[in-house]
Amino acid sequence: MSKEITSREQDYSQWYNDLIIRGGLADYSAVRGCMVIKPYGYGLWENMRDVLDRMFKETGHQNAYFPLFVPKSLFEAEEKNAEGFAKECAVVTHYRLKNDPSKPGKLMVDPEAKLEEELVVRPTSEAIIWNTYKDWIQSYRDLPILVNQWANVVRWEMRTRLFLRTAEFLWQEGHTAHATAEEAVAETRQMLDVYAQFAEEYMAVPVIKGVKSPAERFAGAEDTYCIEALMQDGKALQAGTSHFLGQNFAKAFEVKYLTKENKQEYVWATSWGVSTRLIGGLVMTHSDDQGLVLPPRIAPLQVVIVPIYKGDDGKTEMAPVADKLMAELKAAGIRAKYDDNDNQRPGWKFAEYELKGVPVRVTLGARDLANGVVELARRDTKEKTTVPIEGLAQRIADLLVEIQGAMFAKAKAFRDERIFKVESWADFERTLDETPGFVSAHWDGTAETEAAIKEKTKATIRCIPLDNPHEDGVCILTGKPSTQRVLFARAY
Amino acid sequence: MSKEITSREQDYSQWYNDLIIRGGLADYSAVRGCMVIKPYGYGLWENMRDVLDRMFKETGHQNAYFPLFVPKSLFEAEEKNAEGFAKECAVVTHYRLKNDPSKPGKLMVDPEAKLEEELVVRPTSEAIIWNTYKDWIQSYRDLPILVNQWANVVRWEMRTRLFLRTAEFLWQEGHTAHATAEEAVAETRQMLDVYAQFAEEYMAVPVIKGVKSPAERFAGAEDTYCIEALMQDGKALQAGTSHFLGQNFAKAFEVKYLTKENKQEYVWATSWGVSTRLIGGLVMTHSDDQGLVLPPRIAPLQVVIVPIYKGDDGKTEMAPVADKLMAELKAAGIRAKYDDNDNQRPGWKFAEYELKGVPVRVTLGARDLANGVVELARRDTKEKTTVPIEGLAQRIADLLVEIQGAMFAKAKAFRDERIFKVESWADFERTLDETPGFVSAHWDGTAETEAAIKEKTKATIRCIPLDNPHEDGVCILTGKPSTQRVLFARAY
Ligand SMILES: [Zn+2]
Ligand SMILES: [Zn+2]
Repeated sequence: MSKEITSREQDYSQWYNDLIIRGGLADYSAVRGCMVIKPYGYGLWENMRDVLDRMFKETGHQNAYFPLFVPKSLFEAEEKNAEGFAKECAVVTHYRLKNDPSKPGKLMVDPEAKLEEELVVRPTSEAIIWNTYKDWIQSYRDLPILVNQWANVVRWEMRTRLFLRTAEFLWQEGHTAHATAEEAVAETRQMLDVYAQFAEEYMAVPVIKGVKSPAERFAGAEDTYCIEALMQDGKALQAGTSHFLGQNFAKAFEVKYLTKENKQEYVWATSWGVSTRLIGGLVMTHSDDQGLVLPPRIAPLQVVIVPIYKGDDGKTEMAPVADKLMAELKAAGIRAKYDDNDNQRPGWKFAEYELKGVPVRVTLGARDLANGVVELARRDTKEKTTVPIEGLAQRIADLLVEIQGAMFAKAKAFRDERIFKVESWADFERTLDETPGFVSAHWDGTAETEAAIKEKTKATIRCIPLDNPHEDGVCILTGKPSTQRVLFARAY
Repeated sequence: MSKEITSREQDYSQWYNDLIIRGGLADYSAVRGCMVIKPYGYGLWENMRDVLDRMFKETGHQNAYFPLFVPKSLFEAEEKNAEGFAKECAVVTHYRLKNDPSKPGKLMVDPEAKLEEELVVRPTSEAIIWNTYKDWIQSYRDLPILVNQWANVVRWEMRTRLFLRTAEFLWQEGHTAHATAEEAVAETRQMLDVYAQFAEEYMAVPVIKGVKSPAERFAGAEDTYCIEALMQDGKALQAGTSHFLGQNFAKAFEVKYLTKENKQEYVWATSWGVSTRLIGGLVMTHSDDQGLVLPPRIAPLQVVIVPIYKGDDGKTEMAPVADKLMAELKAAGIRAKYDDNDNQRPGWKFAEYELKGVPVRVTLGARDLANGVVELARRDTKEKTTVPIEGLAQRIADLLVEIQGAMFAKAKAFRDERIFKVESWADFERTLDETPGFVSAHWDGTAETEAAIKEKTKATIRCIPLDNPHEDGVCILTGKPSTQRVLFARAY
């Protein structure tokens, strides 16, 4: 099985696709740019979603649901937002099909069922939501509104890659409304922290928190905060964004509130989102040439038990041992599977669960069991140990914690080794080409320089890190003065 | 607050809308026929979804996600299914907007971005899913496939009503593939049982399990099973359907499998779904002229605690009592809220939580507390009792169970009283008009008679109940022989 996976060195991009498809996470569909998320991939997304949803609720948010369609006149109300997404919009123009008179058994769009106003399939929901908030907000008593939506969105992309860039994807989008700018900024920062905590503690993906340069902001935002991760090929991946929207949407949709002082003021907004793209980042952070490596806290399956026996007698003898172990694992809250499917041989199963990135494998062998031991194999390091079956559930629970920590430490060491401080243009270019990663360099703060650097190197400013120290220097490209370093990288 | 709700007697339909909107469940949106599901309504849906999802997983199903869009050529492959939904399809024809040269700041559909093949926004996903299953199924080893999807779907409806009939709605759709017809039928029946159990045990909505007449089948199904509920106005509501699809989709998409005997056979299919429509049925089953009445097991909020005190001192003195009670309720797994918001008076809060259907209200009064007692009010019967604060959490837990049972018993008694056996056409018509409900009558089994009855009375065959005894009789309309009664009703 694993022989069919392209290695990273051979073709990184093909390696990624092999893992996604052969690992059972997702596949292409008959619809251009849209993917099918298969049960194993969806199980992973469910675990991620459940953790995030709990974190959102713990920070006071509630879920709601807004329409899939945005009438064109609402969509265009906030001009920068509209301009930013106009080129990627799927548009519904008709509401009926009819029999095609020229082709029996075939259908055609009914020209008589043309919509008076076209409907945009939401690429993001600020417009439809702020048009709704207008009805929800009258006075300061109605604020803040802390709402999140789990939904599908559509952005028509010309070049797509499974999870990383698809025409339709699943995401959550938080949309909050506040009485003051300070409160909205605090919310924006809070949700960035939630995302960073989720990425590091659950996905075992280290991230850098920062703010985007004006050129890289979300269309319609005053400030875009982000978390940036580093993939194994040295390219960066934006893993989540949190936007301070100022009063832009409140002004576009005339959303005002009565203050305690009886004045009418525009409302302040935030929005923040992460998507199924996170799964792409997860895969590219941890996986190896044998397959996926999934962090225990969100792995759909944490433990697989593979028995090795001869014939039906062997199977029958092993069953009670496996049942007892499965019951103990379940009682310990561990997601485990006993795979006694006779259609496949143990060797095939070993490769299959390695490909699927199951963190821990237990091998039950008849001889081992006679000695009261089993073999434990961990996916991340491929270490195998023989341990007593006595107390196994607790040992596995501990091992899962250890694996989670080891995966994060490994990814963090990899990332930390690839943040390069450079002082000259020659070093900047060489670093990007020879030791790809984050390049920390001075920039003169202008959009022109940023664009010129992107044009020359394909590297973009990933973020201005939040914990950036003040440091005087000169821009690597123009030599103009600069007061802080920013992080550049080529990115997904 | 409650004075603004129309009574059922005055205008049943307006009463329903008042409850949905003023109760905070949903509202109309700027998009024709699409609703906004507000946080309280979405919280209810989350609870329903979580229970159903657990039941699906316990019966061996996994979730997955398939594209929102269905290319027209796939959509039309299963002809009956396509014909059934063609008139309700929202169609994406373009993938880009551009600046409108004649209107500065406005956008228009870019005529150069016309899709080669139109995309139907899924009204149901059999086509896109069976086109995918083709790749998943080679041999009997790949069967059964037991997959469910939680998703939004769009059916362009001309007359819409919040939750009951909207252009976009949320639902789940199970799509399973089997080696034999027997297995597929068993799956269809199993999921019908899951739906019935969910409706009765969680929603406290009694349902009748049955099978649809051929005319009322899902487009593309060989048999449609359903659960039917009765609303307070005597109209029926189809609350869930489970379809045996035969080999129709397997044939349309050429999905065959290799049997153990090395033969190629078409695969057998089922699909089954419930939607946010269930919320409409829930509201119309239990609510009264004061507002919503929600069953405890799925109510977003099970208990509200309203304090009555004077001034800040009173509030401070009450806080520790409330905190202790809230902690005890939380420990007992009860969803509770302590509402000490000073912006509203207790009387306003009483009416508000009554409107929202919170099953139990606890009133904390200073004088009562001095005596070690509190007032408990139950929403369903409006009974109030004074009880010791000692042991309150357990008393409330018991009361929630009691309310759940009482609500089901009340709804069942109401429903059972409205199943009328009639023997003549005159009785049939009079019953529908004077005592609306389910009418159990003999039918000659022909589509012509069924259509004639619908034309004359607007009543449809809701189902042929599964537990129907064999009974010889004559059709109420034609006098032709019949071997069983079927259930007629006017319906939502
Ligand atoms: Zn300085
Ligand atoms: Zn007979």
